[in-house]
Amino acid sequence: MAHLNIGSLIFDDLDQVDLTGPHEVLSRLPDSTWKIYAKTMAPARDMKGLRILPDALLEEAPQLDVLHVPGGFGVDAAMADPVILEWVRRQAMGAQAVFTVCTGALLLGATGLLRGKRATTHWASHHMLPIFGATAVNERVVEDGKFVTAAGVTSGFDGALHLAAKLRGTEVAQGIQLYMQYDPRPPFDSGTPETAPAALVASTRAAMASVLERREKAVRAVAAAFT
Amino acid sequence: MAHLNIGSLIFDDLDQVDLTGPHEVLSRLPDSTWKIYAKTMAPARDMKGLRILPDALLEEAPQLDVLHVPGGFGVDAAMADPVILEWVRRQAMGAQAVFTVCTGALLLGATGLLRGKRATTHWASHHMLPIFGATAVNERVVEDGKFVTAAGVTSGFDGALHLAAKLRGTEVAQGIQLYMQYDPRPPFDSGTPETAPAALVASTRAAMASVLERREKAVRAVAAAFT
Repeated sequence: MAHLNIGSLIFDDLDQVDLTGPHEVLSRLPDSTWKIYAKTMAPARDMKGLRILPDALLEEAPQLDVLHVPGGFGVDAAMADPVILEWVRRQAMGAQAVFTVCTGALLLGATGLLRGKRATTHWASHHMLPIFGATAVNERVVEDGKFVTAAGVTSGFDGALHLAAKLRGTEVAQGIQLYMQYDPRPPFDSGTPETAPAALVASTRAAMASVLERREKAVRAVAAAFT
Repeated sequence: MAHLNIGSLIFDDLDQVDLTGPHEVLSRLPDSTWKIYAKTMAPARDMKGLRILPDALLEEAPQLDVLHVPGGFGVDAAMADPVILEWVRRQAMGAQAVFTVCTGALLLGATGLLRGKRATTHWASHHMLPIFGATAVNERVVEDGKFVTAAGVTSGFDGALHLAAKLRGTEVAQGIQLYMQYDPRPPFDSGTPETAPAALVASTRAAMASVLERREKAVRAVAAAFT
């Protein structure tokens, strides 16, 4: 069993569960090291204010075996940052597994590496994946070759368990699931646009409209650079 | 609608998802403020190394409306710390809602406030609740008066959504669930000792035996002080 270097990217305005969900799982893989990389050593502030410290600078990362990319509103700025984008592209090309959660898939898409691949992302940004040449699949976890993409926010748990099983076997993944008592019982059935009350989906889309419009502009600008 | 001051306690060797799961939900309640409180302003290091910054010192907290207490191996030391214990007791007495995740229930139990109450905690420590005079209930989320206790780690999402509905109504909770795409699809059915493979449960219990023995000693020592 070869040692695994696992690394997550962080940036301001990430959605912290995109990072912390997978951390709970992947930091428990046998014979592995897990570190958070960022452009500066300042704490990254999540969309709602939670502050998380990086472990090292981007340029200090070895070639990672597993690259993990979270999402959140900060993805728009990260996509437009050539230093971050080039780091993601280079690490993703060399890694044996690349794992995105939520709109982290858009950041990966911005490198051009999802062209022709099946992928998923947060439901509200799902229609943007084809702008990067990816096939948008409405599933919670999508695997295409070495790329594992998970849907919105909490889907990172499911994606990380899937990846844990792929990297270290089913029993390891089941043991982590048992430890973290992952036997979810949501009190409502409101986790997707298909199951949530229609009025709520409409008001949520309306509330996100300007964010999504801005994001789509950012996505089109980056995509134009390589198409 | 009265403004809600929500506060989470952190300490070294917490299990970070006990904090970050509820944060994802409770930081999105309308007309509320959410802050992390700690004994010092140093970053708290989670059991697996994730470093999170507190927002303020314990003594800077106003009387909180909602007190949130995470768990993790660090609970043993926190229970034995009179400053932390007294802060939890005082805040819990004045709060309108007290929410624990995982072994955070033991820290709350150590204040004596769970005596005669129904409660839950991580499956491996479940048998310790009665030492504090609580009735241990094998459910994912247990509500008894103003106390909401959730089982291990990831149950904090379910507990927080339950609490969100209680504090701000069902539609708010459903909207947060939709935003975070909480439509869990665990790839295995291994999240409880009842559903996981028996051999895995046995090996997990064996691996945790010394931790649990140490914890039970800590629990009995604290309980002896008030019984």
